[in-house]
Amino acid sequence: MAKPKVLLVLYEGKDHAKDEPKLLGCLENELGVREFVESHGYELVSTADKDPVGSSEVDQHLEDVEIMITTPFFPAYITRERIASAPNLKLCVTAGVGSDHVDLGAANERKITVAEVTGSNVVSVAEHVMMTILNLVRNFVPAHEQAVSGGWDIAAVAKDTYDLEDKVVATVGAGRIGYRVLERLVAFNPKKLLYFDYQDLPQAAVDKLNAASKLFNDKDNIVERVEKLEDMLGQADVVTINCPLHEGSKGLFNKKTISHMKDGAWLVNTARGAICVEQDVADAVELGKLRGYGGDVWYPQPAPDNHPWRTFRNKYGGGNAMTPHVSGTSLDAQARYAAGVEEILTQYFDKTYNYAPQNVIVIDGDYATKAYGQREKK
Amino acid sequence: MAKPKVLLVLYEGKDHAKDEPKLLGCLENELGVREFVESHGYELVSTADKDPVGSSEVDQHLEDVEIMITTPFFPAYITRERIASAPNLKLCVTAGVGSDHVDLGAANERKITVAEVTGSNVVSVAEHVMMTILNLVRNFVPAHEQAVSGGWDIAAVAKDTYDLEDKVVATVGAGRIGYRVLERLVAFNPKKLLYFDYQDLPQAAVDKLNAASKLFNDKDNIVERVEKLEDMLGQADVVTINCPLHEGSKGLFNKKTISHMKDGAWLVNTARGAICVEQDVADAVELGKLRGYGGDVWYPQPAPDNHPWRTFRNKYGGGNAMTPHVSGTSLDAQARYAAGVEEILTQYFDKTYNYAPQNVIVIDGDYATKAYGQREKK
Repeated sequence: MAKPKVLLVLYEGKDHAKDEPKLLGCLENELGVREFVESHGYELVSTADKDPVGSSEVDQHLEDVEIMITTPFFPAYITRERIASAPNLKLCVTAGVGSDHVDLGAANERKITVAEVTGSNVVSVAEHVMMTILNLVRNFVPAHEQAVSGGWDIAAVAKDTYDLEDKVVATVGAGRIGYRVLERLVAFNPKKLLYFDYQDLPQAAVDKLNAASKLFNDKDNIVERVEKLEDMLGQADVVTINCPLHEGSKGLFNKKTISHMKDGAWLVNTARGAICVEQDVADAVELGKLRGYGGDVWYPQPAPDNHPWRTFRNKYGGGNAMTPHVSGTSLDAQARYAAGVEEILTQYFDKTYNYAPQNVIVIDGDYATKAYGQREKK
Repeated sequence: MAKPKVLLVLYEGKDHAKDEPKLLGCLENELGVREFVESHGYELVSTADKDPVGSSEVDQHLEDVEIMITTPFFPAYITRERIASAPNLKLCVTAGVGSDHVDLGAANERKITVAEVTGSNVVSVAEHVMMTILNLVRNFVPAHEQAVSGGWDIAAVAKDTYDLEDKVVATVGAGRIGYRVLERLVAFNPKKLLYFDYQDLPQAAVDKLNAASKLFNDKDNIVERVEKLEDMLGQADVVTINCPLHEGSKGLFNKKTISHMKDGAWLVNTARGAICVEQDVADAVELGKLRGYGGDVWYPQPAPDNHPWRTFRNKYGGGNAMTPHVSGTSLDAQARYAAGVEEILTQYFDKTYNYAPQNVIVIDGDYATKAYGQREKK
């Protein structure tokens, strides 16, 4: 009888895998789980051949796969069609945070568990948000390009350079990542920190932010929840998106939403590419409604070479702070999500199913979290 | 009789001056002080023609100049030779922070007052430090280059990407800028914050940093003074330089000093270019001792097109986060330093000489601050 199968879909490391053994999250290094998986009587298959749906190597293994593991950086899209082709699939693990690449509805119908390693890279992403905000507001890219290419034209850079201090910064989503962004913003002495979410921040979190603001800047009540997204957008100099992708957030930032933003504002998206309508965002920067857009999430991933986010610029040549999807795959984060995947597999192999609650997205045919917007259930 | 003369040396704005009226710090917009200066019976001459010493337009006005105003971004070097050629020079004003472009010894001999607008851009520079640290540690430049140029090779970026969290960050200098950097670092949950300075941070400042660390990360005693520079360098993952340029700091970071740093550390310098030996720093990155170097200060300024800091890279193609000297000339900072210059001029014109103490570098033939390293005096 064939062994049960674990399918691991990761980006290729190639020479980089040899350069850096800590690059656990690549195909060659297999999250360091091969021996562990095999010791439990499973076959481990690793591949980067994930597209197109229907004919890739991933599809060839669906018939007998029991566990699928992939990452948000190079996701195997686990569609309804693929789930239908995988009769033995029981567990989908995201090595990282965000499980929108899985059709959660189809997973629920089949009572497939979807779990992720929530704590593994929330800090990494929050840092990426801070870096992107600073790069946009302080106009890093045109400055660096001038440093490298030659010349000394301070005015060309300075005319689009601002300070983050005394700006209104707003987050869409104040969960594990959004809250950490707020923590990191306080010391920059913002005018106000705003958030939009389906629930209040815990009082202890609000108290921390306010206490730090009082301590550093002698300002009370720095953080405020705004009930209507449009009201928040109209006040914010910087908007950062930190919510999951789900039916309610797909395409949320489109031409109409952006029209509610302040002229010359900056928009940062490290959540998921599909939360923004790609051409609407690129147009908003090119036409001057937004001063800049940055982040590291795209749809699909890998992003095609002609994706409009690769090349848009504002009228002064700046305003683009895009990176490929790397925020959550720092070497520090890789160590954490590799360990987290092994922990989830342990609970599965040992049949305890005693997953950490924050890591479970769907289980036993239902959503385990409200974060994916399916609030009518539970 | 000719009117007394104010000489203003600023970078050219050209079309950028028209694009952005808030670009006060350029030649065309003259810090917005023309009418004010002329109303006090002075002639205002503005120029960007500052080099070479001896034959530039600046030199032609030395004979009858009473007040010289320049910036750190495009400094008119007020050398001993120029001071000797300027018999009526009474006041040198730096529109920004850092007055090392003035020969302070020669100024003292002539009892010329040197004043700057200390508060005008300490926040701007502290933000630039944070941006540079994040860009180096998180490997922004290669990531952005890939986003723009095409392709999707996460491993190539990830293999040199780290989190700032849990790193030891050390500042050389914990004055107005260095302390603000420490404030902004606390929420990033560093392993330790270290500083090297000629004096202790005020207890209230230490208490703030420790209280914030306790609040956010439940860590006590996050900040620590280190007596010997070498001891600090051996512990730090990130070193940020935030001290003035003076006899004691010129060339401080050379091959020998860098040899005391941790292998693979990052070095950030937003203070003054001449604090680092340019080829030693470039070599340290190219040869792999340092993982990266970034900042926005050069010597001389404008930096020549063949300055080694324009193009060095580490073995993975990253590790360079240089910008031209723009950190302190954001539009927000320009408003502040323009106002600060007018305030200093008011005190001079009104003969109150009631300058804010933190703005005075030398006065009445002596140093007004210990920050420039002349501790034997006062």
